[in-house]
Amino acid sequence: MNDLIEKANTLMEALPYIQKFSGKTIVIKYGGHAMVDETLKKSLMLDLILMKYVGINPVVVHGGGPRINAMLERLDIKSQFINGLRVTDQETMDVVEMILMGKINKEIVSMINQHGGKAVGLSGKDGKMLMAQQRDPQLGFVGDIKEINPDIIHQLANEGYIPVISPIGAGSNGESFNINADSVAGELAAALKASKLIMLTDVKGIMADSKDEKSLISILEINQAESLIRDGSINKGMIPKVEACINALHHGVKRTHILDGRIPHAILLEIFTNKGIGTMVMP
Amino acid sequence: MNDLIEKANTLMEALPYIQKFSGKTIVIKYGGHAMVDETLKKSLMLDLILMKYVGINPVVVHGGGPRINAMLERLDIKSQFINGLRVTDQETMDVVEMILMGKINKEIVSMINQHGGKAVGLSGKDGKMLMAQQRDPQLGFVGDIKEINPDIIHQLANEGYIPVISPIGAGSNGESFNINADSVAGELAAALKASKLIMLTDVKGIMADSKDEKSLISILEINQAESLIRDGSINKGMIPKVEACINALHHGVKRTHILDGRIPHAILLEIFTNKGIGTMVMP
Amino acid sequence: MNDLIEKANTLMEALPYIQKFSGKTIVIKYGGHAMVDETLKKSLMLDLILMKYVGINPVVVHGGGPRINAMLERLDIKSQFINGLRVTDQETMDVVEMILMGKINKEIVSMINQHGGKAVGLSGKDGKMLMAQQRDPQLGFVGDIKEINPDIIHQLANEGYIPVISPIGAGSNGESFNINADSVAGELAAALKASKLIMLTDVKGIMADSKDEKSLISILEINQAESLIRDGSINKGMIPKVEACINALHHGVKRTHILDGRIPHAILLEIFTNKGIGTMVMP
Amino acid sequence: MNDLIEKANTLMEALPYIQKFSGKTIVIKYGGHAMVDETLKKSLMLDLILMKYVGINPVVVHGGGPRINAMLERLDIKSQFINGLRVTDQETMDVVEMILMGKINKEIVSMINQHGGKAVGLSGKDGKMLMAQQRDPQLGFVGDIKEINPDIIHQLANEGYIPVISPIGAGSNGESFNINADSVAGELAAALKASKLIMLTDVKGIMADSKDEKSLISILEINQAESLIRDGSINKGMIPKVEACINALHHGVKRTHILDGRIPHAILLEIFTNKGIGTMVMP
Amino acid sequence: MNDLIEKANTLMEALPYIQKFSGKTIVIKYGGHAMVDETLKKSLMLDLILMKYVGINPVVVHGGGPRINAMLERLDIKSQFINGLRVTDQETMDVVEMILMGKINKEIVSMINQHGGKAVGLSGKDGKMLMAQQRDPQLGFVGDIKEINPDIIHQLANEGYIPVISPIGAGSNGESFNINADSVAGELAAALKASKLIMLTDVKGIMADSKDEKSLISILEINQAESLIRDGSINKGMIPKVEACINALHHGVKRTHILDGRIPHAILLEIFTNKGIGTMVMP
Amino acid sequence: MNDLIEKANTLMEALPYIQKFSGKTIVIKYGGHAMVDETLKKSLMLDLILMKYVGINPVVVHGGGPRINAMLERLDIKSQFINGLRVTDQETMDVVEMILMGKINKEIVSMINQHGGKAVGLSGKDGKMLMAQQRDPQLGFVGDIKEINPDIIHQLANEGYIPVISPIGAGSNGESFNINADSVAGELAAALKASKLIMLTDVKGIMADSKDEKSLISILEINQAESLIRDGSINKGMIPKVEACINALHHGVKRTHILDGRIPHAILLEIFTNKGIGTMVMP
Repeated sequence: MNDLIEKANTLMEALPYIQKFSGKTIVIKYGGHAMVDETLKKSLMLDLILMKYVGINPVVVHGGGPRINAMLERLDIKSQFINGLRVTDQETMDVVEMILMGKINKEIVSMINQHGGKAVGLSGKDGKMLMAQQRDPQLGFVGDIKEINPDIIHQLANEGYIPVISPIGAGSNGESFNINADSVAGELAAALKASKLIMLTDVKGIMADSKDEKSLISILEINQAESLIRDGSINKGMIPKVEACINALHHGVKRTHILDGRIPHAILLEIFTNKGIGTMVMP
Repeated sequence: MNDLIEKANTLMEALPYIQKFSGKTIVIKYGGHAMVDETLKKSLMLDLILMKYVGINPVVVHGGGPRINAMLERLDIKSQFINGLRVTDQETMDVVEMILMGKINKEIVSMINQHGGKAVGLSGKDGKMLMAQQRDPQLGFVGDIKEINPDIIHQLANEGYIPVISPIGAGSNGESFNINADSVAGELAAALKASKLIMLTDVKGIMADSKDEKSLISILEINQAESLIRDGSINKGMIPKVEACINALHHGVKRTHILDGRIPHAILLEIFTNKGIGTMVMP
Repeated sequence: MNDLIEKANTLMEALPYIQKFSGKTIVIKYGGHAMVDETLKKSLMLDLILMKYVGINPVVVHGGGPRINAMLERLDIKSQFINGLRVTDQETMDVVEMILMGKINKEIVSMINQHGGKAVGLSGKDGKMLMAQQRDPQLGFVGDIKEINPDIIHQLANEGYIPVISPIGAGSNGESFNINADSVAGELAAALKASKLIMLTDVKGIMADSKDEKSLISILEINQAESLIRDGSINKGMIPKVEACINALHHGVKRTHILDGRIPHAILLEIFTNKGIGTMVMP
Repeated sequence: MNDLIEKANTLMEALPYIQKFSGKTIVIKYGGHAMVDETLKKSLMLDLILMKYVGINPVVVHGGGPRINAMLERLDIKSQFINGLRVTDQETMDVVEMILMGKINKEIVSMINQHGGKAVGLSGKDGKMLMAQQRDPQLGFVGDIKEINPDIIHQLANEGYIPVISPIGAGSNGESFNINADSVAGELAAALKASKLIMLTDVKGIMADSKDEKSLISILEINQAESLIRDGSINKGMIPKVEACINALHHGVKRTHILDGRIPHAILLEIFTNKGIGTMVMP
Repeated sequence: MNDLIEKANTLMEALPYIQKFSGKTIVIKYGGHAMVDETLKKSLMLDLILMKYVGINPVVVHGGGPRINAMLERLDIKSQFINGLRVTDQETMDVVEMILMGKINKEIVSMINQHGGKAVGLSGKDGKMLMAQQRDPQLGFVGDIKEINPDIIHQLANEGYIPVISPIGAGSNGESFNINADSVAGELAAALKASKLIMLTDVKGIMADSKDEKSLISILEINQAESLIRDGSINKGMIPKVEACINALHHGVKRTHILDGRIPHAILLEIFTNKGIGTMVMP
Repeated sequence: MNDLIEKANTLMEALPYIQKFSGKTIVIKYGGHAMVDETLKKSLMLDLILMKYVGINPVVVHGGGPRINAMLERLDIKSQFINGLRVTDQETMDVVEMILMGKINKEIVSMINQHGGKAVGLSGKDGKMLMAQQRDPQLGFVGDIKEINPDIIHQLANEGYIPVISPIGAGSNGESFNINADSVAGELAAALKASKLIMLTDVKGIMADSKDEKSLISILEINQAESLIRDGSINKGMIPKVEACINALHHGVKRTHILDGRIPHAILLEIFTNKGIGTMVMP
């Protein structure tokens, strides 16, 4: 009986959040450990499906890191890195695109479909969604977003699909560009006028002392986040994530979150319960 | 952390039921203790609102028992009963209609609205929804349903409202008839092609021995139910409820339930968890 | 043959008015003798149905006076009046609501349905249509309109129904407030952007000398009406009616009318013939 | 005051007919004296506009008789007649088409527009509405209907226009055929699933003794009509009219009428009053 | 094989023009030799049908010149001309309207229908499309456009029809006015927000020296055109055509063309190939 | 001038085919030389865009042959073949999917977009479009189509996109299956109720003597095709193509074609000109 009361309370706790986000779009950057661990993968798929059923439109942007490296190694292609950015020659770009669209994207689509959802996977080339430009000739096919055309995402979402997006853009000659997945998630959130942007990571969130999980910062305002970047407390791979959040906030997204993707159903808990987890970056 | 896992599990447990009932209609007969106790009243309103938000169309049919009696007493109107059915003269009918539509219906509407839903209250006269005929001249304005026109319910449900219905029918001369609320719920479930009919009661469900709560029967097939009526195990006020269930099942409703309305969120638990409560009557 | 010519002329006389009001909303405050006399009741119902069929959207707001008093008396509830306004304690409010929604509203709905129309009765609580606030703690549940949400009226009108409205509002805690029916009619006319507001009364209209029917004023401009109120020529129950007209005119309603509801088909004649009857209050 | 009662009664008398024909199509064959007399012309236009405003879809088929003859005479073109049918050579056909479409059709359109309606004039060639075949090589361009495509009429009626149709059909090589206007009206009524077909004539209706107006037959069943044709009581120009009625009735039109077009507002009176005028031919 | 390459190239050459004009409106003034020669007539009909099929909305405005004169002669009606404008008395106007609507318009409609398109012919009276006013009492029924109501054209175009329009306008009393077809084409192009206005003529285009076809001017800007009118290089019947082009350009039409209607498929070639023919007048 | 006549003739020749296929679906199997040669690639993209603009819905199914082999070689993965079918182990399947979806599909999408069309690339996993089952455990991940869900194709086509499909199916556990692209094209043509199925090949068509191009068979009926397979005249890679055609014809596709993809604009010429090229297989 206590068990039943608990269950009822949990469902009731979710109600105001369902009311709040019904009909809204939430962009999720999917990456890290949650892309590797089977339990976490499944828990994310179910979170997406539940969101869709209660009237929320989730849009997934995924990365690809380790598997791209594995294939490059396998093919004996050496990458150079400049300022932490992979120099992406044509051969590397081919591998990036094949792994992202040919493997990872379709695996996510397939898992959502298998658990009762309906997903469609897209690259930024489909429907001219992500138009890109070269960042720096030295870096090869590393691109930045030049223009977003979100029509195809709205159309698929309206037909009941969950769009799953690989961070590849099309150049003006139709060539492929590798774009940072965090940036794509942030820019799409802005273009889709999303209510939330959620970045899945492999840490608890943003910490005052990145070695001490107890120093987790629950809420961070833009200017605080900017000063933490300047003083180096936010560093390495966390920088593009926080910058994407700040960018999205500047373009009207209401709330952005750095979540610990190692917790099963982290997104579900963030969205549907009173218990905030991870760090919320807000205006 | 265990707490979070529990919450996530409960939400996940709900997912397949949300998938199953999305876009479906569920008719709820609201009566008994759940109409008196403030906590239970509020819990029902929230259940209805949650259902609406996850894409289910709840339709509420309410009764009125004790408050009608109180007003009749207050007005010093004596009622006769024939075979457990109130003889309803014009004066009594006026009181019935005033209490049902003028008080109870609007209180339910108001509570739903206050907690974040949008309700509209209707009597069977509105939009010619329930056309009635006299059951027996001896009984006065006691009516049976002759014809149901569910258009207005579909229209309101499509516009996002929760319809709340008083069991009053219109005779061919526009006069009012008092119809048994259980029957109205059963017939409406049939006319609306509902997926479920739920009868809220003040007992645990149907019991093999009505004095022993441990003898609760979880699942009952139509023919079993009929033989329990014949042998008297199902008796008194439970008879019209079970008959309404059987009627609804014969007209294509998939599942019908006799639930214990004294449990907070009984409907929520029945619909969204694995834990069946009360008695399910099925084909 | 002359008879036929007369008939044809009358129908032709109606044509320009049908053209003018097609697709427009007309709010009718229904009260007084026309709610008691059977012939007048029926004539009003037919007028509403004819309006609906020629493309006009009639919206009815009704009062309840004498029957509320009768029930209060019957229940031996004594009312106080302060400045002509009933002090409405909880017990009185219950009676008001029961009579308005439980009896009068449904009788009007039923009569319209019986004569070939389709009506739906609403209180201001339904669909959160009339949000009210207390006028004065001394007066108890006497309310003023705080906010109008006319969605439900537009939706029902578009589906072919004639909305019939009881002047009861919902307070912020879901409690009921008794609102003056003339004010409700006036405010609804404004919120619905009605073309006309028609107040049915038991007098010929506004008269220069209220004891001399021959002193009927056919057309009255706002400022004239205001000075007639100041000098006492317009007094008693006529004041809220004229004030509701003035309020409606200030919010964009084109024409308002004080009609003699004792004339059968008074509304029909006002709308569809050259012969203006009663008093028109105009900007 | 009596005058007002009369007016109200007339409007009320119209109500059940408005209810009955709302959304229905009525085909009117317009010809004879009503096309010449200015008062009758205007009265017909107003009748059509009133019908349109109360939700009826009138469709007008017109003839052209005397003005065609006048122009043939003016051009000194001699016509032969075989069995009462004009032999229509190319030169004659040109005159027929010019007068029908170039003069009469556009005059009707213009009059409707001027009095507040919206009309569009069509020949059977427009939108491939009337496909015709030659009746008899001897008769030249005299055609019979081979196929009706009523799409364009439905489309215009739905957009609020009153279609006005000249009885000219297109042959398989695009050539024009002169079709009897009565037949076109009958066949269109059938193809449009009209509720009524009304033939305007210059007599009181069908009379048992065509010289005695008092012998008017108010109601005629198909078999009676057929025997009156056989015994010659129905003769000359009345034959195609009655045959068109019978044809329409066989294809599902409910009621057909032979009306006296010399009475102003004959159609209005027939449709909206209890007073049947002329002869009704029914199944 | 070369033949196939040629065909493929031609189809490919058309592609960018199909892309450019898809969904756009093109107004064509149809007149001169192209209305007489059978081959040219057929080629124009096919051009219109092809345009419609590739998503362009062609609207045809036709003139009537020689056939009107022939009929006037036949009827022995003498016309006066003032400044090149026919004085149009009532008798003449009747002939004009009969020939335009009764003959020419319907022939065009019929030819389009025969070759696989769907056309509907309209005069400016239909749907109150062209409201006209008298130019000069001396000229009789010569009119200028006072107001254009293009609804009926949009509605027919959306339903898949090709509208074919006679240049006749309705005066405020419903009387007919003869309007210059070039002007009608220009004003309609403006009112329909057309992308192109094409005037078919019997010359190569605008020539610097009207006697030397080699002096054809391919592109002409508005101010150049105006100075050519002033210095008399553009004269006679070319003046209203060029003025209609200038008028259309001033109201937002992008390109206007004076084409040689004696070339089969002149319109097709102008729209779908790189080879401009005739004279383009542009802003 | 002759040049202009030729152009006009070619456009006119296309008209009846545009009329015939407007709104229809045409499935194109894209493979062979046309996927390698830059000129041919571009010519196909333009053909698809032209088709889309004239109202046809092209759906592209592509293969991948040589590039898959190149990558397998590069990765030093040896393939076994059983009866001409590649044995597809997990590692091979990964390569197949990466090349098809990650490279070829997106290159086609990108080229269509660059030339003015709007394409979206899909694998059979997207939207659960192609559900597959294992053909034979010995062959590993070689699959056959078990069920087709064409919703996503219809939705994209209606929104103006050209769907480009990789022949990969989803097994019941979400695993990927390699399906023969010819079969996918044939089954999709059937499921989409396509009007035409076009198979691009590297030969002139079906030849009586496969070494003699002059023995090209222009038209082949199903039973003839079947006997040519039996007697070995149709052999090797042509067999699945012809079988896919026969299968499609059995399911209601009207016409199927084996075209020489080495001819630029082969599809355009087949669809829009009188000149049939290649072999048509018909019922």
